[in-house]
Amino acid sequence: MKINIEESIKTYGKKIDALLRETIPPDKDDYLSEPIWHHLRTGGKRIRPAICLITCKELGGNPNEALYFAVAIEILHNMFLLHDDIEDGDTMRRDQPTVWVKYGTANAINAGDYLLARAYQCILSSPIASDKKMKYLDIFTLTYEKTVVGQALDINARGARDFTVKKYTDMVELKTGYYLACGMVGGAIASGHSDRVIDQIWKLGKFMGPAFQIKDDLIDLTKGKGRGGVIGSDIKEGKASFLYAYTSEVATEDDKKTLIEIMTKQRKETTEADVKQVLKIYKKHNAMDHAQRYAEDLIKQANSIIDEIPINNKTVFKEIANFMAKRMT
Amino acid sequence: MKINIEESIKTYGKKIDALLRETIPPDKDDYLSEPIWHHLRTGGKRIRPAICLITCKELGGNPNEALYFAVAIEILHNMFLLHDDIEDGDTMRRDQPTVWVKYGTANAINAGDYLLARAYQCILSSPIASDKKMKYLDIFTLTYEKTVVGQALDINARGARDFTVKKYTDMVELKTGYYLACGMVGGAIASGHSDRVIDQIWKLGKFMGPAFQIKDDLIDLTKGKGRGGVIGSDIKEGKASFLYAYTSEVATEDDKKTLIEIMTKQRKETTEADVKQVLKIYKKHNAMDHAQRYAEDLIKQANSIIDEIPINNKTVFKEIANFMAKRMT
Repeated sequence: MKINIEESIKTYGKKIDALLRETIPPDKDDYLSEPIWHHLRTGGKRIRPAICLITCKELGGNPNEALYFAVAIEILHNMFLLHDDIEDGDTMRRDQPTVWVKYGTANAINAGDYLLARAYQCILSSPIASDKKMKYLDIFTLTYEKTVVGQALDINARGARDFTVKKYTDMVELKTGYYLACGMVGGAIASGHSDRVIDQIWKLGKFMGPAFQIKDDLIDLTKGKGRGGVIGSDIKEGKASFLYAYTSEVATEDDKKTLIEIMTKQRKETTEADVKQVLKIYKKHNAMDHAQRYAEDLIKQANSIIDEIPINNKTVFKEIANFMAKRMT
Repeated sequence: MKINIEESIKTYGKKIDALLRETIPPDKDDYLSEPIWHHLRTGGKRIRPAICLITCKELGGNPNEALYFAVAIEILHNMFLLHDDIEDGDTMRRDQPTVWVKYGTANAINAGDYLLARAYQCILSSPIASDKKMKYLDIFTLTYEKTVVGQALDINARGARDFTVKKYTDMVELKTGYYLACGMVGGAIASGHSDRVIDQIWKLGKFMGPAFQIKDDLIDLTKGKGRGGVIGSDIKEGKASFLYAYTSEVATEDDKKTLIEIMTKQRKETTEADVKQVLKIYKKHNAMDHAQRYAEDLIKQANSIIDEIPINNKTVFKEIANFMAKRMT
């Protein structure tokens, strides 16, 4: 049976939002609630927690058992956004000033720390059997840790002189792969599936994460990432994108020199002409086409992984992969 | 029997350091190990985790059962130091440049986040019964959260116009009280004590935390806090100290105006003459004497709490309180 992912996201979204508000009450006078809700109100479609609940239901589990974990994932996601915006120096997110810009770096770091505490609290107060709860704590901590390790590689790869596609995929597997798989793994745990199923879902994340990140890198060059619709933020930030990795490997020495020179510039020193120059180099080496093909190949591989998941009904994984691929075009 | 706290800290220190190195291996090439060990190598006496193990042993438990939790506390402590140094703009710690100064803000935030992941991982991999492990996860998360909530009050009380002793103690109970009690609570959990015992230890933290923080505030004005031996860093930072809280309440309008003016100045704009002026105002209103008496009164109250702990042998709590009081003079 076909699953309506869009519809399910809307339905589960209400449950997720209700528990999110219970876990982090808005309008508390504690210097935490205000910056956090400034950020949460800017949007976010709760896609990741919804995917957890959809997976749980489709695998025969009770979504209420996965709900607290799903909300913890959403909180973790937002905690990373708060800290990443400081680390990346991003001043706008979803067309609003970022938390560190509006409330200062100190409050933004601390608000992120608080979110993480509430995420753990949310899992700990989950009304499920303690063996499942322990598994949730395990996979949540694993995901949190791997994402941070990936972020460390990401920060330090900016404007790097020896960046490669291999380094890029290693970094992105860590930074986005675990996070992407985590919700589906959570759904599989609540519905009582075996470690063999779970291992396969983690593996799935290692292909889907990089695939979607590459597509995200491409979006920055075509329609911008919703930060005021600006094109090429990644170039201004010197961000370690797939395009940068690939072009670093294949470009002529002269092009590579120009590329690194622009990518290592401070954001405010990077001109529009610089951005255009980088785009020209990317185009010259067919980096965009290559990225597109590379991402599509990863998605094909992800589909093979799904075929190997040792359960009968794999529709949910195929549908989630399709849904996410569609969002990324 | 008298417990030699100093000696026990040394003995347990080796076990703690060994597991700490196992949990966060030094010299990994991941942009995390280097900043973290730059910080860890600057010192730290592992007092907090040792207190956990001492409490465990003296209450009849097996310290090996509490070891992983003890190390998690030490990691949490260092995670807070990394983030707090950014939030406070502190450039030196234990006479070394702080992590954000040496490795940049992005790496310092991320290294703190990584420490927290490793702390949870350490508890999760603890070789103890799962009910005790779950209790550890509960109290660790509680302590982490309350400390962050206290930090939010602290950051935002800097140079505040309406700061009071009540606000100060509320803030410090949160920021240091849970953290101080957490190790002893951990020792009581490993040795299988009841919730009544544990509740009483938490209560103990609410008196001991503020007592020691007030003494710490005083040290800043007498011998400095080991950041190059500078006196009055708290004044330069506009930090919400007991002295500031008390003087805000009792000072004349003129003195209060001068005080707030200096405390709200940016650190680099605060002159030595400003620091002297604030000290003069503190002295005029006997703030130091009052702080000393207030702290001693809290310690007396802490001792009454110890008397009410529903177990026979209370020596360990008295000895720990004495030891910490002595360190603070």
